Amino acid sequence: MRYEVRLSGAGGQGMILAGVILAEAAAIYDDKNATQSQSYGPEARGGASKSEVIISDEDIFYPKATNIDLLLALTQEACQKYVGDLKPDGILVIDEDLVQTIPDGTFSVFRVPITKIAQEKVGKVIVANIVALGVIVGLSKVVSETAIESAVLARVPRGTEDLNRKALRAGFEAVKDLSK
Amino acid sequence: MRYEVRLSGAGGQGMILAGVILAEAAAIYDDKNATQSQSYGPEARGGASKSEVIISDEDIFYPKATNIDLLLALTQEACQKYVGDLKPDGILVIDEDLVQTIPDGTFSVFRVPITKIAQEKVGKVIVANIVALGVIVGLSKVVSETAIESAVLARVPRGTEDLNRKALRAGFEAVKDLSK
Repeated sequence: MRYEVRLSGAGGQGMILAGVILAEAAAIYDDKNATQSQSYGPEARGGASKSEVIISDEDIFYPKATNIDLLLALTQEACQKYVGDLKPDGILVIDEDLVQTIPDGTFSVFRVPITKIAQEKVGKVIVANIVALGVIVGLSKVVSETAIESAVLARVPRGTEDLNRKALRAGFEAVKDLSK
Repeated sequence: MRYEVRLSGAGGQGMILAGVILAEAAAIYDDKNATQSQSYGPEARGGASKSEVIISDEDIFYPKATNIDLLLALTQEACQKYVGDLKPDGILVIDEDLVQTIPDGTFSVFRVPITKIAQEKVGKVIVANIVALGVIVGLSKVVSETAIESAVLARVPRGTEDLNRKALRAGFEAVKDLSK
């Protein structure tokens, strides 16, 4: 079982931290193998940025994500740019207020107001990346809810634990009915 | 030209952030290609942790570091655990107060009091990872000094720019004579 996740958005939306947390949830708290990576090419100066996580029960010999199971896109630009490797039966999660045009494809699309949830339910736009982790884990079950919560709490700045726990749980909640 | 860097230490020493900054220096400010990654296996619960950066003038097709040009080791445990893939003519940089036993090998060894510099010259142990970046770039020239400084300033928390600039420059300074 190998599961590939690509987290994409604009610089500053915390996609690398989200990737690190997801990988640590899998490896440290759920006893799986994981890799987390960023690659930067000549396009690195542009606005879209991505971070990738591969989770597997086995050793991961090839750490490049080429066959994406789940793509998160927090901006329209990131969505267009990074949808290419999404599997035909994969999952596309978009921030419904920031991505208006859905690329054609046979993948499933989940529209979630991720940034709005961060703003309205948690009170801080900056935790949109943690809301997104709640959404991703709620939909895919790629790691357990307790593992992702432990990993979030271990990585966020001291003093912000409650805020981030709230953000994560708001993400779970947003897709509770969708993922059944 | 492909250059592989492995940054290792204990959890909490900021090796992932250092790796991200080094990769962004190469790609965003020096116009090279770069990948940055963490892999976590069953040993992820242990105390040693690593982060890897590959920098190249060409596209990077194989993003796994297997032939390390430069290994940073901030703890004895990390040094033992991660020295294995260091090239025979590679560079080993150790924190001389935290790594007492140098593994056998034909690589060059640079002993630098990285954590002590962070404490005594900058006043904050927490910036040891940024001092280490100054040391690595000073010795290897794998990215330019202006690129690494720009990348550091773009990534550190707002309000800590001066502190981190000072840490980086203290790292350059510490190896100025060694690298000539």
